[in-house]
Amino acid sequence: MRNLITDVPGIRIGNAHDARLASGVTVALFEELTVAGVAVLGGGPGTRETDVLAPENVAPGIEAVVLAGGSAFGLDAASGVQAWLRENGRGLQVGAVRVPLVAQAIMFDLLNGGDKDWGRYPPYRELAHAAVSDARETFALGSVGGGYGATTVNLQGGLGSASAATPTGFTVGALVIVNSISSAVIGEGPHFWAAGLEENGEFGGLGLPATVTPAMRRLAWKGAPVRATTIALVATDAKFDKGMAKRLAISAHGGLHKALRFAHGFTDGDTVFAAATGRNARPVDVDAVIEICAVAGDCLARAIARGVYEASARPGSPLPAWKDRFGK
Amino acid sequence: MRNLITDVPGIRIGNAHDARLASGVTVALFEELTVAGVAVLGGGPGTRETDVLAPENVAPGIEAVVLAGGSAFGLDAASGVQAWLRENGRGLQVGAVRVPLVAQAIMFDLLNGGDKDWGRYPPYRELAHAAVSDARETFALGSVGGGYGATTVNLQGGLGSASAATPTGFTVGALVIVNSISSAVIGEGPHFWAAGLEENGEFGGLGLPATVTPAMRRLAWKGAPVRATTIALVATDAKFDKGMAKRLAISAHGGLHKALRFAHGFTDGDTVFAAATGRNARPVDVDAVIEICAVAGDCLARAIARGVYEASARPGSPLPAWKDRFGK
Repeated sequence: MRNLITDVPGIRIGNAHDARLASGVTVALFEELTVAGVAVLGGGPGTRETDVLAPENVAPGIEAVVLAGGSAFGLDAASGVQAWLRENGRGLQVGAVRVPLVAQAIMFDLLNGGDKDWGRYPPYRELAHAAVSDARETFALGSVGGGYGATTVNLQGGLGSASAATPTGFTVGALVIVNSISSAVIGEGPHFWAAGLEENGEFGGLGLPATVTPAMRRLAWKGAPVRATTIALVATDAKFDKGMAKRLAISAHGGLHKALRFAHGFTDGDTVFAAATGRNARPVDVDAVIEICAVAGDCLARAIARGVYEASARPGSPLPAWKDRFGK
Repeated sequence: MRNLITDVPGIRIGNAHDARLASGVTVALFEELTVAGVAVLGGGPGTRETDVLAPENVAPGIEAVVLAGGSAFGLDAASGVQAWLRENGRGLQVGAVRVPLVAQAIMFDLLNGGDKDWGRYPPYRELAHAAVSDARETFALGSVGGGYGATTVNLQGGLGSASAATPTGFTVGALVIVNSISSAVIGEGPHFWAAGLEENGEFGGLGLPATVTPAMRRLAWKGAPVRATTIALVATDAKFDKGMAKRLAISAHGGLHKALRFAHGFTDGDTVFAAATGRNARPVDVDAVIEICAVAGDCLARAIARGVYEASARPGSPLPAWKDRFGK
């Protein structure tokens, strides 16, 4: 196990970013058409092809999920992935043509100090093409890909991932760009809200403070204009239909609440996709669904903490990185 | 402040339960037609008049919210509240008649040891009439009203409530029936998952364990047939429209994830209503909405812990109460 979403067989991750732009793209490429769902629970989302995922709509699956910066301009990224899929003969067969379906969510990183003066063509399409061309099973976390320009209210955000095997024998993983409206750490200290779920010291092994004072839990968020959104993909190797994939996406949102001071506010666009590769032939009963949903929430919480833990300071950003502030 | 949802002016709470039935009803009575919203995020809900609350639908508000046991049979309860409202001349004027709109969610307590052999007429309608007739500003928590028959996987559940004033000057409160599929405490110990949010020792003041071991976070849930659902109401005195009330309901769901090992699984019907009495004339800007949403999630998390903390052991239930197991 790599403790990455790629522990779920059939998923590869590609990353590309531009330091001058202070933004980037992360692509989760499915090795074949994959059942997926989505739950948009934030109040300021930016998405593409989410309606395709509705259980009552026809498409049986999608080829990839894109998580990107750039706010609404970043929605060009899925087009770059489509171009790559077309070049590689992928897509839903419709008569004589193939239509590659790619779902996407973006987060807001337009005011993070990067050079956003891109003229007529935002760079996200090309970044996405580069990212998917380099999709692989092992990838770095932190200030990488779509997480490059990410921030929380008090620390650098970043790209996170985590995985787990369920007791029943399924594999679950999460991938996230942590650009939260609030914070992944308790107050101004080093402890992560998700510490109760931490596996093997994956984000420093500091545990929890015995007491959380009112000052430590004081609400703080990115003020207007709010520059937030946490976007994620969770995945399992279980065989789910589209309805169950949507259930998985809804449940996994719990990871945001477990790992962040708060989420799903009015102005963030918190969105979670869920994918089920179906490569594990084990029967899926009700308890298996419950377990996969709960473990996916845990994985997403851990991935959020890891994304912040692994981030680096970035030129042009006043925010410190967790490791610079608290690392040994 | 009473640390109850009734700290939000314009809301009174009535409770009624039947010990032999091992179930009951909790009614939140609004003193006037009140803007409300709902977010159904569990996979096995039982609800009534939730479509009325949709922002695109016509009704400007509702008169009451009912939280009850009895599973689908308990949906009779809203009828009892309607009858009381009619007797008291309340309801939306439609020509010469008044139609009192009452929203409701139920939870599953049919297999909790109570006598459910009620024949043709489930008792929830009469319990609800009794409850609303006795609605008041002060009420007990724990094994009371709709929380009487509630359970978690390892301890008695119950009725919880909490409130807070936001820094900006709004009041927020939560009311919940904790009948969770999982647990409000960490492992088999006394610590609550919500302890980081606890105010003034309201659920024992034990704080958090410094380390949460894998055994302490081991997933446990009520096995099939799953007897779960956590149902809640959050409220504020701010002036919200129906869309913002729905946003508040969505955001407040975070309280379930903060206070419970997990939530929103496949078979629970976790549902949160939100009400905005509008009695606070202070202008509501974006930051105020964010703050109210975040504080509502905190209040709901605290209410969940309080519901379990205040519960009593119940004849016919094998589950201990928190106070019997851990109280001094």
